[in-house]
Amino acid sequence: MRATLGEIAAALGVELLGPSNVAERPIEGIGPLESADGATIAFLSNPRYRAQLASSAAACVIVAPALREEALARAGGRGAAIVVDDPYLCFARLTQWWARRVRPAPVAGIHASAVVASDAVLAADVSVGPHAVIEAGAVLEAGVVVGAHGFVGRNARIGAGSQLAPRATVHFDCVLGARCIVHSGAVIGADGFGFAPTKSGYVKIEQLGAVRIGDDVEIGANTCIDRGALEDTLIGNGVKLDNLVQVAHNVQIGEHSAVAGGVGIAGSAKIGARCTIGGKAGVAGHLTIGDDVHIGAHATVMSSVTEPGVYSGYFPLDEAKNFQRNAAVVRQLQKMRERVRTLEKQLERQPGAPTGPNNDNEAA
Amino acid sequence: MRATLGEIAAALGVELLGPSNVAERPIEGIGPLESADGATIAFLSNPRYRAQLASSAAACVIVAPALREEALARAGGRGAAIVVDDPYLCFARLTQWWARRVRPAPVAGIHASAVVASDAVLAADVSVGPHAVIEAGAVLEAGVVVGAHGFVGRNARIGAGSQLAPRATVHFDCVLGARCIVHSGAVIGADGFGFAPTKSGYVKIEQLGAVRIGDDVEIGANTCIDRGALEDTLIGNGVKLDNLVQVAHNVQIGEHSAVAGGVGIAGSAKIGARCTIGGKAGVAGHLTIGDDVHIGAHATVMSSVTEPGVYSGYFPLDEAKNFQRNAAVVRQLQKMRERVRTLEKQLERQPGAPTGPNNDNEAA
Amino acid sequence: MRATLGEIAAALGVELLGPSNVAERPIEGIGPLESADGATIAFLSNPRYRAQLASSAAACVIVAPALREEALARAGGRGAAIVVDDPYLCFARLTQWWARRVRPAPVAGIHASAVVASDAVLAADVSVGPHAVIEAGAVLEAGVVVGAHGFVGRNARIGAGSQLAPRATVHFDCVLGARCIVHSGAVIGADGFGFAPTKSGYVKIEQLGAVRIGDDVEIGANTCIDRGALEDTLIGNGVKLDNLVQVAHNVQIGEHSAVAGGVGIAGSAKIGARCTIGGKAGVAGHLTIGDDVHIGAHATVMSSVTEPGVYSGYFPLDEAKNFQRNAAVVRQLQKMRERVRTLEKQLERQPGAPTGPNNDNEAA
Repeated sequence: MRATLGEIAAALGVELLGPSNVAERPIEGIGPLESADGATIAFLSNPRYRAQLASSAAACVIVAPALREEALARAGGRGAAIVVDDPYLCFARLTQWWARRVRPAPVAGIHASAVVASDAVLAADVSVGPHAVIEAGAVLEAGVVVGAHGFVGRNARIGAGSQLAPRATVHFDCVLGARCIVHSGAVIGADGFGFAPTKSGYVKIEQLGAVRIGDDVEIGANTCIDRGALEDTLIGNGVKLDNLVQVAHNVQIGEHSAVAGGVGIAGSAKIGARCTIGGKAGVAGHLTIGDDVHIGAHATVMSSVTEPGVYSGYFPLDEAKNFQRNAAVVRQLQKMRERVRTLEKQLERQPGAPTGPNNDNEAA
Repeated sequence: MRATLGEIAAALGVELLGPSNVAERPIEGIGPLESADGATIAFLSNPRYRAQLASSAAACVIVAPALREEALARAGGRGAAIVVDDPYLCFARLTQWWARRVRPAPVAGIHASAVVASDAVLAADVSVGPHAVIEAGAVLEAGVVVGAHGFVGRNARIGAGSQLAPRATVHFDCVLGARCIVHSGAVIGADGFGFAPTKSGYVKIEQLGAVRIGDDVEIGANTCIDRGALEDTLIGNGVKLDNLVQVAHNVQIGEHSAVAGGVGIAGSAKIGARCTIGGKAGVAGHLTIGDDVHIGAHATVMSSVTEPGVYSGYFPLDEAKNFQRNAAVVRQLQKMRERVRTLEKQLERQPGAPTGPNNDNEAA
Repeated sequence: MRATLGEIAAALGVELLGPSNVAERPIEGIGPLESADGATIAFLSNPRYRAQLASSAAACVIVAPALREEALARAGGRGAAIVVDDPYLCFARLTQWWARRVRPAPVAGIHASAVVASDAVLAADVSVGPHAVIEAGAVLEAGVVVGAHGFVGRNARIGAGSQLAPRATVHFDCVLGARCIVHSGAVIGADGFGFAPTKSGYVKIEQLGAVRIGDDVEIGANTCIDRGALEDTLIGNGVKLDNLVQVAHNVQIGEHSAVAGGVGIAGSAKIGARCTIGGKAGVAGHLTIGDDVHIGAHATVMSSVTEPGVYSGYFPLDEAKNFQRNAAVVRQLQKMRERVRTLEKQLERQPGAPTGPNNDNEAA
């Protein structure tokens, strides 16, 4: 694909700066600042890459106002720049424009091999891929795309413009809002993990709720969102879930929260709006995480977090021997604390010892 | 769906208590105690929700004998109750009865789009969904349901009454017992991870075993159970695996054990009966966990656990700065222990110091 | 299946030792040393199983030269042995030979139910299973096998001899080398997790790169490898990924590295050659792990690791009460270190205290 800088600037609705005729420059790709060549458009958003700007061979760089002169001064004044308040956002929009140009649009229609129930309700322009299955009573609103091997269970509803990648599964009665993206292998609406324990084994609690998902939600590959036991599992507008995330039954995730890969969220946990949860973190069930809480990677959240803020819970790795030796001491920490207390008391008893409160206030 | 309390009590084989005509009350749903309305049946099992009982508007509450009067006294004596020794179990059975009434039963038959090998052996009443694939020599016993896009490999056997949700995969030679449920995306019988390392790279060890699964086993969405290297991977009767669990080759899981979401169990680990393993815990290979062992969420099991009991292994998260500072000290714990020892020795040398054994018995 | 020891030795190109007529012994299976019977061939590689050798009833044992006499002396001198420098490698090759004999070879041809684009390029001998989908411009080189429900997106390329298990998914533009194995449910080329945050929510960054995978790579069940944002995600020759692994966009994994189940590797991390990463470990984004680095199970890698070596980062579990008490002290470690410092200073001020540097050099 090839476009001129002028076309790009016009498509993004931004001003293009640089030498005369800059609008004619041909662009063949979007690339990182460092490896960009004269047919590449790049961007600079993270200040730590600023050192790469002056020497970048990129045909054009998207930068913030503070870097305008630096971007234009490149190549002896032959640099081009798009100056915007939020270069990263501008870059995001550029990728969207680019993708629309290089990728074939889904073709409306139902593939001959798809199995669509006679009473499913499909908008005129939906695209249903090969071997997809749409069950009775399901609704696909305008512009919906169901990829190859997609499955939409009975009475499920897929909102306008939502896209199911090949092999995405949405079970019966589940509801997706508009403009959602569900990646391959994701399973929405499998049974929650609920059993009554008895002496002769577990007795299944049928999961009578479903999953309700807002607008503009993206759900990663092989991610699972279980249906609720009695009420619905709820995913708010704008939520983004990465791959291999487990969302258990009756979880609620507030608007515009983002959850990284491999996270597990146990049953009935409530997560607020605008939260982020780092990769492989775990959230226990029946707790509440407030709005604007940021949980670091690998952390274990076992009780509610009510204050907005940044929380962490991982230990850096070390050479195996060192780590194991220190880890062994962790198993003795209570005893060590007692030994420190004993020492403090011994010293207090000595003539000339300092008096007053010590730090021993951390009752377990 | 709508049922009367009388129908429900009769179906569950329990006694219904309350004012006259209580059996006529129409029920439209099962719900939590707190949000239940006059057309809802609720239950109280966990004592911490007891405070919600008196004010619950539920048409009927399933309670234990101790709460009988409190349940009936609701609404000025118009409360209804089902009094049973195990309200949670009664609730579980109610959900099962309810689900059978609101969900269409699978229709026996083989969908025209399914690909079934001519020498597969299918009981007369099995249900095979659209685009399912049943390979040569596979056996589906009475009442088996294979959902859309299901895959049953050659010579695999699915026991009577077992259900494969859409897009469940059971590979060749694997055996499931009766009444199992396999959720979407689960993969039973992929190759175990086995290689002989050489200087020029890894050489694959073909996995010549299979997977054998008992009766009444439930396997969560996108969970993987690998086939054994030489012998079979074994899952006992009544085992329940949540979503996104990894069970490596040659693992054995004893009867009625339950494994929560995101757990990983490495090769050849043996887990006993009636164990529970919390979410995202990890179990190393070639170790043994005895019966009735309960492993908490996020714990790392790196050596055998022989005694029944409750085990834990997670660190609560903290504000990021605090956590990181304390985590940095963990890397110095050995040194800190030595410093404490040094202090103790110094004090012992002083006149008037206490004598006798100190606590320094934690040789690493 | 049944073979003679002579056939096996000939197939593996190794010498068979033992009593006369040993080549005639019939073998019906490969098994562990301990449970092997007179129709089983076993191997001994790990020295900790050596004690099982003398009493093993195996028809033949594959051993290293040092154990030659011990292997032959079994059963009063009737033991048979295959003596090789690397018994484990010999065993691996035996499993491969065995599997080829007991498993039906994939039949070349395209199943009638598969949907293959007219301009896809398929070598004459490929095997495409039922309900597979091969999109426009895709290339399947010689000997490729695509299992049931397999998906190969437009312009993707699958190298010679590679095998996609049932329900493996390779998205558009992605490239696999020769002799790769992709297990069921694996998703190669879903979108990386990239968004520009704005006040009104996240704006998607279209992922314009793809995934490029070398030769002899094995990818586990339900593992995900995301496509790159601008450039490609890269997996080197000989890499082995276990099940449920998350490889985020723009990750690079060097040749012959092996990654165990449940590991997560965040965006743009670079992992060197010949590394191993233990089960459920996590690797943060934008860091570098050098060659020959071995990361233990459950470790969290949050900064670059440049030196070859063995690294660890897990805490062994403990009885729940003990663990929780010690974990509580971890939250006080900074304070405890200060208390130890205070004690040391007090003692230094005392007459007769030792002088010189103390250990207090661990500035956080």
